[in-house]
Amino acid sequence: MKYSTYFGQTKKDQKQYESKNQTLLQKAGYVDQLSAGVYTYLPLGLRVLNRIKVVIQQEMDRVGGQEVLMPTLIQKELWEKTNRWDLEVPFKTALNDGKEFALGWSHEEVITPLAKQFVSSYRDLPFAPYQIQTKFRNEPRAKSGIMRGREFIMKDMYSFHIDQTDLDAFYDRVRDAYFRVFSRVGLKDVTYLTFASGGVFSKFSHEFQVISPVGEDTIYVSEEKKIGINKEVYDDEVLNELGVRKDQLIEKRAIEVGNIFKLHTRFSQAFDFQYADEKGDKHYPVMGCYGIGLSRVMGTVVEVLADEKGLVWPKEIAPYDVHLVNLRADVRAAEVYEKLQRAGVEVLWDDRDLRAGEKFSDADLIGIPLRLVVSEKTGDKIEVKSRTSDAVEMLSFDELLLLVHKE
Amino acid sequence: MKYSTYFGQTKKDQKQYESKNQTLLQKAGYVDQLSAGVYTYLPLGLRVLNRIKVVIQQEMDRVGGQEVLMPTLIQKELWEKTNRWDLEVPFKTALNDGKEFALGWSHEEVITPLAKQFVSSYRDLPFAPYQIQTKFRNEPRAKSGIMRGREFIMKDMYSFHIDQTDLDAFYDRVRDAYFRVFSRVGLKDVTYLTFASGGVFSKFSHEFQVISPVGEDTIYVSEEKKIGINKEVYDDEVLNELGVRKDQLIEKRAIEVGNIFKLHTRFSQAFDFQYADEKGDKHYPVMGCYGIGLSRVMGTVVEVLADEKGLVWPKEIAPYDVHLVNLRADVRAAEVYEKLQRAGVEVLWDDRDLRAGEKFSDADLIGIPLRLVVSEKTGDKIEVKSRTSDAVEMLSFDELLLLVHKE
Repeated sequence: MKYSTYFGQTKKDQKQYESKNQTLLQKAGYVDQLSAGVYTYLPLGLRVLNRIKVVIQQEMDRVGGQEVLMPTLIQKELWEKTNRWDLEVPFKTALNDGKEFALGWSHEEVITPLAKQFVSSYRDLPFAPYQIQTKFRNEPRAKSGIMRGREFIMKDMYSFHIDQTDLDAFYDRVRDAYFRVFSRVGLKDVTYLTFASGGVFSKFSHEFQVISPVGEDTIYVSEEKKIGINKEVYDDEVLNELGVRKDQLIEKRAIEVGNIFKLHTRFSQAFDFQYADEKGDKHYPVMGCYGIGLSRVMGTVVEVLADEKGLVWPKEIAPYDVHLVNLRADVRAAEVYEKLQRAGVEVLWDDRDLRAGEKFSDADLIGIPLRLVVSEKTGDKIEVKSRTSDAVEMLSFDELLLLVHKE
Repeated sequence: MKYSTYFGQTKKDQKQYESKNQTLLQKAGYVDQLSAGVYTYLPLGLRVLNRIKVVIQQEMDRVGGQEVLMPTLIQKELWEKTNRWDLEVPFKTALNDGKEFALGWSHEEVITPLAKQFVSSYRDLPFAPYQIQTKFRNEPRAKSGIMRGREFIMKDMYSFHIDQTDLDAFYDRVRDAYFRVFSRVGLKDVTYLTFASGGVFSKFSHEFQVISPVGEDTIYVSEEKKIGINKEVYDDEVLNELGVRKDQLIEKRAIEVGNIFKLHTRFSQAFDFQYADEKGDKHYPVMGCYGIGLSRVMGTVVEVLADEKGLVWPKEIAPYDVHLVNLRADVRAAEVYEKLQRAGVEVLWDDRDLRAGEKFSDADLIGIPLRLVVSEKTGDKIEVKSRTSDAVEMLSFDELLLLVHKE
């Protein structure tokens, strides 16, 4: 794409927000805040979100997840069955005739009765539908940019099993899939599997916490075991159980980017969802649920990786592969642009009639992994610079292609 | 994918709904109704929706559209600027502190102030952002299946221009793009460009109406000119202007699958959005808006193409390329399944241990374009049958690949 006609460009006079991700993403033309916690994704931002989506879809599909799309309008009667209508979290709305709905902030109330339709015997289990969809939460405070939205994009998967053993095995596979996701989006070294409250039915749930000073959670980290313990369950009994001592733990602020949770039969019971075993005896399926906030992951990557010059995207989720900059009066750029596109490289070409310095500083702000410069001086070669290094290389077109396609 | 573990299978005892698309899509395991006009898309249904999405994205990108994603929660103050807060159509909700929102049922109130941020001079125009997103409309009646949802998926594009001439030229290009969309999704011969009311600012808007007895609109069709006239503007003056006579027109019921509309400066004025021309004089940009309901298109394809045996999907939007059926005790199917997948063919394999007749009738119900049978009798060959023909052919694997990849 040519940047001169791009919808949503960099801003010179961006207001500073409380949150770094919001300031940078707005300044660089990725998102726009409509009201606190409510954002529009501009073309650059939507491209990042879609690349995060693909990573998550691939990893969920690998563990046998099946993608569906559930609705936002969920009628009151369903929430009453689980005693979740009167919580603070839902936004509520109604038909003109008075019928009431909560906007989906979690989807157990939809997926459980849906799953029930397709199960009679143990042979119909297990399965794990997931969706990537907009969630709504009536948050009192929404000042963390796209990390805490009143409206945000989330992947939620729900699994259904004949018993605890089957759930446990699947749960461990999803835990591993989550690490693959966080590794691929560039958060590998800073993400800790964190023991958190399991609620009424489990000792623990597990959070995926990214160490960051802007995190809203406090966790205690064991570097040796590469685990964290959420403050909410931090006591001697838990330390004992996990085999860690207080003097091995460091208190850290962290951002929760994902969580996995064993729900046992809380929801299958609420919806009277039973299956028959080999003898014909009835049982409630055991459930798990597994969430990742896509927009939160995107905001977290900004918080963790951005530097003083602007955004820094890992290759796997960058909006484009390369950022092509031509210097004034150059005529070769159009040819390089076409050639790159024909070779299947995603190019953002800054074709604006601006000084080199302005284009370079916008390229740093936008944060695409490789910056390419062509000018009268570069001759047959292309000047290539990584976003995270100051060194420039002069490469032939074929050498550039090898670099772009390198893992 | 193997059908034995598929989430959302065919139903034997499907209730008959008022709408054919709802009955068939539920019976075949594509969608599930949560409440009137509110649906979950199961894996098969989501695949069709995603393929329609790709067609629309490609055609919008071809005319220079740029994809964004706007939010659902739109604050009251924005609707007050355009006098659209007090309509019947919006669902409304509020923060716990009382701040009010309408759920987005159209997005002029978001895109116009957003576009304003990026425009100062005539050089910044034109552009045309679009999104594919969930819309909410407080419909009193929602009995047409996925054709009329209270919550539904829509593509809405908005264009911004320096003047009427530039809008008119773009509008005509979008009109042509819409015909390409409806042609690709299988509605070519039944879609009529239909003259409808243009509201206060234009003589006409244009609807894309699909002839169908279940349509909610009445239009008058000229087969010769391949146009329609919506009943709402059907009078002597209009007939005169369009150069058609009453005796050339046939009254038909039709489904509106898309519409395009010139908005002039209604919204740019409401948000005091101006640009400076070459002399520095200020003007309001002229706008157009362009909608297609994705879920409505999907429902319309069902209404128009389904037969007494079940769904019939055009190749371009089918959930899978081929539906593989093995007969009992066959061992070759797994090999054919793997080989097809390696060749890049999307396969749904009915690997259930059921009688052939049951599998064939499910294949007809599900409606994938090609049914493949392997059994002891088929030897090295594969039996191939089109969903819309009774003739079967015996093809080699390579002949089958040619057929699948044929336009």
